[in-house]
Amino acid sequence: MSAAATGATTGPETAPETAPLLLGELHASLADPLLDAMTFLNEVTERYPDALSFAPGRPHEGFFEPESVHEYLDAYLAHLADRGLSRSAVRSALFQYGPTKGIIADLVARTLANDEGLDVAPESLVLTVGAQEGMLLVLRALCATPEDVLLVSSPCYVGVTGAARLLDLATVPVPEGPGGGPDPQAVHEAARAVRASGRRPRALYVVPDFANPSGTSMPVEARAGLLAAAAEEGLLVIEDNPYGFFARGPGARPTLKALDRRRQVVYLGSFAKTCFPGARLGYVVADQEVVTPAGRTSLLADELAKLKSMTTVNTPALSQAVIGGLLLRHDCRLRAANAPASAYYAANLAALLRELERQFPAAERARLGLSWTEPEGGFFVVLDVPFTADQAAMERCARDHGVLWTPMAAFYPAGGGERRLRLSISALSEQQIEAGVARLADFVRESAG
Amino acid sequence: MSAAATGATTGPETAPETAPLLLGELHASLADPLLDAMTFLNEVTERYPDALSFAPGRPHEGFFEPESVHEYLDAYLAHLADRGLSRSAVRSALFQYGPTKGIIADLVARTLANDEGLDVAPESLVLTVGAQEGMLLVLRALCATPEDVLLVSSPCYVGVTGAARLLDLATVPVPEGPGGGPDPQAVHEAARAVRASGRRPRALYVVPDFANPSGTSMPVEARAGLLAAAAEEGLLVIEDNPYGFFARGPGARPTLKALDRRRQVVYLGSFAKTCFPGARLGYVVADQEVVTPAGRTSLLADELAKLKSMTTVNTPALSQAVIGGLLLRHDCRLRAANAPASAYYAANLAALLRELERQFPAAERARLGLSWTEPEGGFFVVLDVPFTADQAAMERCARDHGVLWTPMAAFYPAGGGERRLRLSISALSEQQIEAGVARLADFVRESAG
Repeated sequence: MSAAATGATTGPETAPETAPLLLGELHASLADPLLDAMTFLNEVTERYPDALSFAPGRPHEGFFEPESVHEYLDAYLAHLADRGLSRSAVRSALFQYGPTKGIIADLVARTLANDEGLDVAPESLVLTVGAQEGMLLVLRALCATPEDVLLVSSPCYVGVTGAARLLDLATVPVPEGPGGGPDPQAVHEAARAVRASGRRPRALYVVPDFANPSGTSMPVEARAGLLAAAAEEGLLVIEDNPYGFFARGPGARPTLKALDRRRQVVYLGSFAKTCFPGARLGYVVADQEVVTPAGRTSLLADELAKLKSMTTVNTPALSQAVIGGLLLRHDCRLRAANAPASAYYAANLAALLRELERQFPAAERARLGLSWTEPEGGFFVVLDVPFTADQAAMERCARDHGVLWTPMAAFYPAGGGERRLRLSISALSEQQIEAGVARLADFVRESAG
Repeated sequence: MSAAATGATTGPETAPETAPLLLGELHASLADPLLDAMTFLNEVTERYPDALSFAPGRPHEGFFEPESVHEYLDAYLAHLADRGLSRSAVRSALFQYGPTKGIIADLVARTLANDEGLDVAPESLVLTVGAQEGMLLVLRALCATPEDVLLVSSPCYVGVTGAARLLDLATVPVPEGPGGGPDPQAVHEAARAVRASGRRPRALYVVPDFANPSGTSMPVEARAGLLAAAAEEGLLVIEDNPYGFFARGPGARPTLKALDRRRQVVYLGSFAKTCFPGARLGYVVADQEVVTPAGRTSLLADELAKLKSMTTVNTPALSQAVIGGLLLRHDCRLRAANAPASAYYAANLAALLRELERQFPAAERARLGLSWTEPEGGFFVVLDVPFTADQAAMERCARDHGVLWTPMAAFYPAGGGERRLRLSISALSEQQIEAGVARLADFVRESAG
């Protein structure tokens, strides 16, 4: 009903608009240069639609079929009926508000047991709207005062620094060591420096497997060392593991959570890369004990669920039902279900490294001052280049050479990475990777020249 | 893979757990008594499963059929194909990461035009994970400093005060007038008091139609007055409208957004009550102009989308596709599609008011000191009772009389409402309402004793 139709108006049609909002008066997270960097990347991608893009970290979509959504949904609903739920109860589970912690914790726990050897009680799980919501909830729970600080491995995934900025939380970067993940010594130093400044380090965020953006993966011994260092400093470890399945080499390393004997690890999981992003389904494993002032104990997962009632209330039952059905269809074994995807990414990563080597043999690399990481899996390779790999360089590369990548500087919260760029292999075919590296090589030679 | 299987351990199996987390060291929003109130209500509901419950505000589920999800999903995918999208592009839309603002803004805009006479450009819309995420984003954008304050009509929906607490934002209650919604004078007074305390009132949250919890609805003239008062005080108005469809009387009043000539209203929409909660789909209409320090202009909707990249990244494409298909199946006219639901709720509300009247004729009401609201629609009636309607009373009522309701005190951020209780008619049948009121009447007489 329009105002005119009801005869109600607040004044002449020419009534002035309310004064425009000033961006400087909105929350500071909106002034983050990272947001401009993302916008710029999107704009360049749109301006050069024919460019081969090593930029996006999204999964390959050749394994998705729309028809499968029907199959998964039906599989989940049949599973509920098999468990004895009445038609009316099945209907409520799918359509109504549900438990804040989610409805498929049992299936996720079985999958974690099968795929990661993790023995997780379903009540320690909170299903979230992507791992991003999980990060937000964990940071909010742990960082209670302006003195509380989050340590982040650096270079760092932008999702966690973004969530911290939204909550006005301070982050302190801890540099990744050459093997991936922060060295224990770096953790000690960062925690002590934070304490010396009168603040309190609360947790350390780390992606031990094929990290975004560095692509590196922590050796097993380094994992034990990191846990010990964090325990000594009284830090919870927030382990984020979206890429762990996609190893190129002899197989997976144990997650930090699998090595955790002290309940010191909060584990963030995601189905975006192992199922599909359009469900936006993630989860948190938070089996830590919380003690109230009255001495009552609860689980951190239950406290996170309370916070979730203030962010999104529920994770969509639709998404949980479809992913639940997918898990059931694969006997709660996503590692096996993802074997074709793993092989695809491994072949792409091998192709990228092979083509880089072919374009830049050791002698030429040395002459140019060029090097790159050789990750054992995942989506990302980082190039160290002998020139500034900034937005202007990226756009020049798109315009003159038809290839896109991501400047690394945006991933360093405290500066750095100006001569580094990230290449992702997930959204291209092997043939596109070959063509893309040839184009990229021309750009690198031109820019180094 | 278990740690034992890889031979990796961090110490003996008896290694001590990390010290338990102390709730007092977690974020203060977790210590909110409201959370205990919700937990208590859930516990009592579980302990008395046979009680008739006037507590939940969830929609009636008799109109839901699981099969319809398939139909709606297919309708949306066919719509994309009809618009010329290739099979591959349809697949990406459903399965991949998508635009942060969402993928069905065009359909939502058409629905708002048909149902509310709102002329909204699709680019002013952000699809969100329920209206709850919309609240969080709007509060985060607007409240930038510790001096920024949100005014909330009181009694107030707990979702918005919860979102404010999560963000450490101060809220100041503005009492609802007798007709529903705050009087202009109360808005002026609250805004001036906030300014006098050295803080800055930024926005006013209000539910003009069939508010939760009060059930009241603002007259048309009061709406114009509220907008004028807010404009004078430089406040944006955050209008939340989950119940507007469900009028008992002669039809809908114009939304504040329909009356908005100054772009001073940010509108929060929800499909939880008009479609179903399990999709967790809501949206924000934010057509305000934002000006950067460099003089560049953007839309508030685009700024909210940037914040959304830090909360959930995307609203699930699955949910958007299913609700999009539902909108298409109903020609983007949810008011017509909801006519049976509206009639159902209207009959239930009439039954509740009729049975209250039958149990407590005017003379007895006066004698007992009992009264109730007579809302023109929506889900909620509030009873003023001659005794304290707290958790203990609620449990006594469940145990001895087999009926549940919600204490109102939790809805008053600054205290109040101790002798008020909320009855919801949405989740009961007319027969259950009749039986429930009879039981409730026994409890009221006993407690008034």
